[in-house]
Amino acid sequence: MDKPYFRMLFEPQLKEPVFVEGLTGLGNVGMIAARHLIESTGAKVFAELYAPYFQDYVTVKKDGTCRPPRYLFYAAKTEKNHYIILTGDPQPSMEDTVAHYDLCDEILDFAEKHGSKFIVTMGGVVTTNPENDVYISATSEKLAQKHVDKGAQIYGEGRIVGATGLLLGLAKRRGLKGVCLLGATSGFGAERGTALSVFKTLMSIIEAETEEKE
Amino acid sequence: MDKPYFRMLFEPQLKEPVFVEGLTGLGNVGMIAARHLIESTGAKVFAELYAPYFQDYVTVKKDGTCRPPRYLFYAAKTEKNHYIILTGDPQPSMEDTVAHYDLCDEILDFAEKHGSKFIVTMGGVVTTNPENDVYISATSEKLAQKHVDKGAQIYGEGRIVGATGLLLGLAKRRGLKGVCLLGATSGFGAERGTALSVFKTLMSIIEAETEEKE
Amino acid sequence: MDKPYFRMLFEPQLKEPVFVEGLTGLGNVGMIAARHLIESTGAKVFAELYAPYFQDYVTVKKDGTCRPPRYLFYAAKTEKNHYIILTGDPQPSMEDTVAHYDLCDEILDFAEKHGSKFIVTMGGVVTTNPENDVYISATSEKLAQKHVDKGAQIYGEGRIVGATGLLLGLAKRRGLKGVCLLGATSGFGAERGTALSVFKTLMSIIEAETEEKE
Amino acid sequence: MDKPYFRMLFEPQLKEPVFVEGLTGLGNVGMIAARHLIESTGAKVFAELYAPYFQDYVTVKKDGTCRPPRYLFYAAKTEKNHYIILTGDPQPSMEDTVAHYDLCDEILDFAEKHGSKFIVTMGGVVTTNPENDVYISATSEKLAQKHVDKGAQIYGEGRIVGATGLLLGLAKRRGLKGVCLLGATSGFGAERGTALSVFKTLMSIIEAETEEKE
Repeated sequence: MDKPYFRMLFEPQLKEPVFVEGLTGLGNVGMIAARHLIESTGAKVFAELYAPYFQDYVTVKKDGTCRPPRYLFYAAKTEKNHYIILTGDPQPSMEDTVAHYDLCDEILDFAEKHGSKFIVTMGGVVTTNPENDVYISATSEKLAQKHVDKGAQIYGEGRIVGATGLLLGLAKRRGLKGVCLLGATSGFGAERGTALSVFKTLMSIIEAETEEKE
Repeated sequence: MDKPYFRMLFEPQLKEPVFVEGLTGLGNVGMIAARHLIESTGAKVFAELYAPYFQDYVTVKKDGTCRPPRYLFYAAKTEKNHYIILTGDPQPSMEDTVAHYDLCDEILDFAEKHGSKFIVTMGGVVTTNPENDVYISATSEKLAQKHVDKGAQIYGEGRIVGATGLLLGLAKRRGLKGVCLLGATSGFGAERGTALSVFKTLMSIIEAETEEKE
Repeated sequence: MDKPYFRMLFEPQLKEPVFVEGLTGLGNVGMIAARHLIESTGAKVFAELYAPYFQDYVTVKKDGTCRPPRYLFYAAKTEKNHYIILTGDPQPSMEDTVAHYDLCDEILDFAEKHGSKFIVTMGGVVTTNPENDVYISATSEKLAQKHVDKGAQIYGEGRIVGATGLLLGLAKRRGLKGVCLLGATSGFGAERGTALSVFKTLMSIIEAETEEKE
Repeated sequence: MDKPYFRMLFEPQLKEPVFVEGLTGLGNVGMIAARHLIESTGAKVFAELYAPYFQDYVTVKKDGTCRPPRYLFYAAKTEKNHYIILTGDPQPSMEDTVAHYDLCDEILDFAEKHGSKFIVTMGGVVTTNPENDVYISATSEKLAQKHVDKGAQIYGEGRIVGATGLLLGLAKRRGLKGVCLLGATSGFGAERGTALSVFKTLMSIIEAETEEKE
């Protein structure tokens, strides 16, 4: 294996699913927000992504079984929306830029193949005095402005590292639309409060996007 | 050479050989256990594996001849079982994750091509008070439980690094069955006592698996 | 994406354009000089270059929109000359030599495809007592000598790092002609004075080359 | 350029040329010995090797011209023997093992394509009390023993790093014959004395090999 590899568990029947990413990262904000979405929608894992860029160890569970690192794709259908939700094990080393670009492009190929046209990435951003604030960046100024009143502030002039930033940046290049939600964190521990704020903002944005389509 | 490369010395006639890995690592437990198996079965080298991921030096022997780093595959036939045994020179750097994934997948392709359906990986695990304990992880909970009474304890909630872990994790993904045996070590020097315990557990497990097949 | 990727915005109609590079680097001399050329010629971006070798983050603008790192190619037509001007985000890590070689060769393919036969690369060089001096290196001794009186001194016996050096070195191997202009800098901050000297030397050299062609 | 690249200057008519390598390294022993051979045989450069594994800078000469790092292949014909001599700019970083394996295999392909069946690699080895001693390693014990009386001692139980070792090790795997000559050095500065000893041993060995063929 010298390239990323998808393992399909079942083929979900999804119609223009919103693609939501919440991987590990600062305060694990994205991952916790993604777990909220998985639980509230009853999403099921339908695909696994393995890659030679992940750590070269296996994780052993309490029952003695082991598995290599991976990303997981969940499928969910609610009354109003279909979802693909990406979460999983730690991201590759920040130094391995080819790993990040290659993984993000493979993930966007996967999302597009399943009909996604709108993506939301979620992560944390370190601030000196975090109070569950949520910041937003988007593929267009119009999109960023539209959702400012959903509880998010514009994230102006900065960088967004890892998959949370790169997925959105590369999605834009493909002509996809999307937003990135960053929850303010001190950078230490798991930030459940800010993750909940990010989740609520996510729900407001998806609701607004859905209403607009109708 | 920018990819791993197998050099066949002869083609062994093996029937569903148990694939056993014992490479260098913590306390060299796996490698010493593999040597026990090679000696007790009279196994012969039938293939060499070279790769650009190994160290870029050659090793010179007393007689002045030199060779690049490599892994060796031994073939053995006993009354009840056929074996492929993998051992060899030091593993690639832990930082080079692509090297580890690529080598492990090439090795599993090789094992499957030769008919292996059951694999055993062997290594060391650092514990504070090692007393020749053997820990087991497996591709399924059932398999882990079955062999607990063969002298091994369940290795619950941890990581298994390098080929010992990754071979088993990637084997599972291919639908192969197998176990990993980890001998407790302080992490210093060659641990002959714990390697012997791992070897004995290996023999018990293979015996049990063979009886079950019959 | 595991290879560099060009995104064309429009196809400029250029005739034997002078190819001018001014990327980030010491004192940002090259980049500032390139900006002078872009402004004085009214050049327009016609292509973007993305690559997995760039940093794995996105940059967010004041309006909340984000984009991954990239190089930009500008096209310009003046009365006497056509230009392709390369500038953009930070270069890959110096340790990643494959990244530099691969990017430079892709850029030269791009330049040749658009008809360029003469290239100018621009950068900074650290000297102890910089006084806006400009140094020149070239693909041939004749070419270096010809432009010495345009305000540049021969840059003898040294190294030129990054794209500024490698683009010229690899261009020579392809049979292209070109020069490298290095502005003396203390290595700290943005060196506007020396960048202006480099720009003036660039203009003199291009004028001389153009007259020669006529 | 993401792979090594040969640039042919002319095609030499060589018959079973001895392939001699002397690159940069400990005490620059190999490189100085190679220069002795180039001068004594009047060898001419006939090919250049560029690679993305070399440093990403260009070297500027006194006349202001620049070129990227490269290896050079010289061709020579003496009354009794034909030669290909490899020397050049610094080797890739020792950490980049793929670079070393890939370069060495490309070089051996090149040597075999030009009819070489016998290779000699030359380098330095650090010893505590070097007195221009020369050590020998070979592709077979017989070959090592044959040349011991040519002024070289067997280099037993050690490692030979970089191209000097790997070229010989990979040559052996291809069924080529060859020896490695290591000149004892303290590891500091250019060791002209020991390089001369290596050169003399080289000449004795080639003479012996030539006589044997006749």
